[in-house]
Amino acid sequence: MTDRLNKLMNKLQKQPESFDAALITSEINRLYFTGFKSSAGLVLVTRDESYFIVDFRYYEAAAKKVKGVKVALVSDFKSELLKLIKKHKIKSILLENAGITLAEVLKFEAWVKDNGVSFIKTSTLDDAIYSLRATKTEEEIQNIKTAQEIAERALGKFLPKIKIGMTEKEAAFNLELLMRKEGAESAAFDIIVASGKNGAVPHAQPSEKKFENRDFITIDIGAVYNGYHSDMTRTVAMGKISQKQREVYDLVLQVQSKAIEHIKPGVLCKEVDDIARSFIYKNGYEGCFEHALGHGVGLEIHEKPSLSASSKDGLNPGTVVTVEPGIYLNNEFGVRIEDMILVSAEGAVNLTSAEKNLIIL
Amino acid sequence: MTDRLNKLMNKLQKQPESFDAALITSEINRLYFTGFKSSAGLVLVTRDESYFIVDFRYYEAAAKKVKGVKVALVSDFKSELLKLIKKHKIKSILLENAGITLAEVLKFEAWVKDNGVSFIKTSTLDDAIYSLRATKTEEEIQNIKTAQEIAERALGKFLPKIKIGMTEKEAAFNLELLMRKEGAESAAFDIIVASGKNGAVPHAQPSEKKFENRDFITIDIGAVYNGYHSDMTRTVAMGKISQKQREVYDLVLQVQSKAIEHIKPGVLCKEVDDIARSFIYKNGYEGCFEHALGHGVGLEIHEKPSLSASSKDGLNPGTVVTVEPGIYLNNEFGVRIEDMILVSAEGAVNLTSAEKNLIIL
Repeated sequence: MTDRLNKLMNKLQKQPESFDAALITSEINRLYFTGFKSSAGLVLVTRDESYFIVDFRYYEAAAKKVKGVKVALVSDFKSELLKLIKKHKIKSILLENAGITLAEVLKFEAWVKDNGVSFIKTSTLDDAIYSLRATKTEEEIQNIKTAQEIAERALGKFLPKIKIGMTEKEAAFNLELLMRKEGAESAAFDIIVASGKNGAVPHAQPSEKKFENRDFITIDIGAVYNGYHSDMTRTVAMGKISQKQREVYDLVLQVQSKAIEHIKPGVLCKEVDDIARSFIYKNGYEGCFEHALGHGVGLEIHEKPSLSASSKDGLNPGTVVTVEPGIYLNNEFGVRIEDMILVSAEGAVNLTSAEKNLIIL
Repeated sequence: MTDRLNKLMNKLQKQPESFDAALITSEINRLYFTGFKSSAGLVLVTRDESYFIVDFRYYEAAAKKVKGVKVALVSDFKSELLKLIKKHKIKSILLENAGITLAEVLKFEAWVKDNGVSFIKTSTLDDAIYSLRATKTEEEIQNIKTAQEIAERALGKFLPKIKIGMTEKEAAFNLELLMRKEGAESAAFDIIVASGKNGAVPHAQPSEKKFENRDFITIDIGAVYNGYHSDMTRTVAMGKISQKQREVYDLVLQVQSKAIEHIKPGVLCKEVDDIARSFIYKNGYEGCFEHALGHGVGLEIHEKPSLSASSKDGLNPGTVVTVEPGIYLNNEFGVRIEDMILVSAEGAVNLTSAEKNLIIL
């Protein structure tokens, strides 16, 4: 058993459901538990043994790389699964929930229908996996840091190139290129470049709008490195801005700083969200910040925990979250500033070092 | 009702299952039926009405763009769905199967649990949708053609740049860049550049291997345009090649041509696969072509129908499929040649015009 699978089984054994095995089906979670990327495969974990079942495309490489999990080569997933079910006298199997399609569930049910096996279709396995994934190892944190450094170098090289007349689409394309040249496997998500009124839409798609004098330009970018994601937003100004723009920018920066200061182990995510939200609201911008304050980052761009009003999670050492307050003024402009924060025993460690004092281009 | 939703309901009403409505949940299928791209939303189709349920992020744009489907703005998907269930006296709802996660199914079941509604979890809805999507409209074909033209322009600009010492990764990155510059929204899939021995692995990932003299270089690329994908493979030679390489290349080209000639409405997909496969096998390369001959292409890179030995589908006018025979000689080299073919009433129309006579660089 790998360390991660051991931890998973320890978590699962504290749950009320009785089960004989867990079946890990999603690509991301297979990667997390085996360290091996494959477009198809199954991880079956029993109470004392674990198997990574792959086909001929992956067997050789997986057998070499994967430690602590028995790698099984199959031409037929069904008969291998049935063989292991018989061998380990498995009667009930926990299924993933968010990472499996209905079609796959129906397929598995058809496979085992004569074997008296039942699948447990609750969120138990997902909850345990996502809670485990929320606590990053040193190596995972290093990958996230590297991804962030790539994005920062790209942004640093891009900012001097911005000029009036460049379109949001051109900017997004250039930023992606720069990240790739700096070593990103890919962009962590569709880059957001939103200028002027478009900045008032939190998830705006880059458009043909050209940068104009007095625009705020919001740039939300992240890179992928070794499968791990980074996430950062900066809002910069195109020439002279108004008093109101300045005030909103300073307020967002102040709010972000307050929220980050509050981050430490044991604090509830919703408290951090509330600090930012209530400060924005009481400063005259109620209704102008409707999205969550942040989210976990790792093998996926959005992971647990969510820094939102409805979150039930607490912050633990080793968790990496974004803190991204914004103020969006419909038909006027928007400001968002986003850093990635590592929760350490001592408190917040900011993984983002790009300048946050307003850059006027 | 849109034309596509009408066709869907006509297909569904021929199925044995009785149902009152269908719920379309996956992003791709929502896009297909509404023409509107959204990261969240539901399409509910009853026997005489259809609804596209979206949140505030999409409502304004969807209400403007979507015709023939009632666009409903919701802050709460659950209560809107329950309202429509009540209004239309819905008792049974067909669910998607491949495009919905178990977590979503459980969520929907929890929503309706006090309303006596049951979900039909068979492949009926998926089968109807994928069969519908396999027949492309003029507009869809035009988008696929444009995507293909983009990929061909990129390949044309790239080939003169290839030289000994360039790595597969550099090549793949350059090809992606060129496609983006030519107007691709993105690459249709992770570009494959496999040279020398790597070419013997059908789904090789670009590596740090450098191009060497006498290498075959297999390049598998596609672009996305307006959401539609293209797919093409060319194998080119780096300098002088052996007699055996030449023979294998010519055989693959000949096989592809035979398979394409056989394509016309009414032919079974497995027949086309068999023509290629048996010709390769009887020419001394049994076991050297293990993947399917081709697949449908459209809003997804792999769609119905599959040109494989186990396919039960037939070819219909308006279907676009790839024809991609290959010969893979372990530890030696590989050759694959892939075109996209439109099935028309008159037979095969090749949508690929990139040179297929062996290019020696």
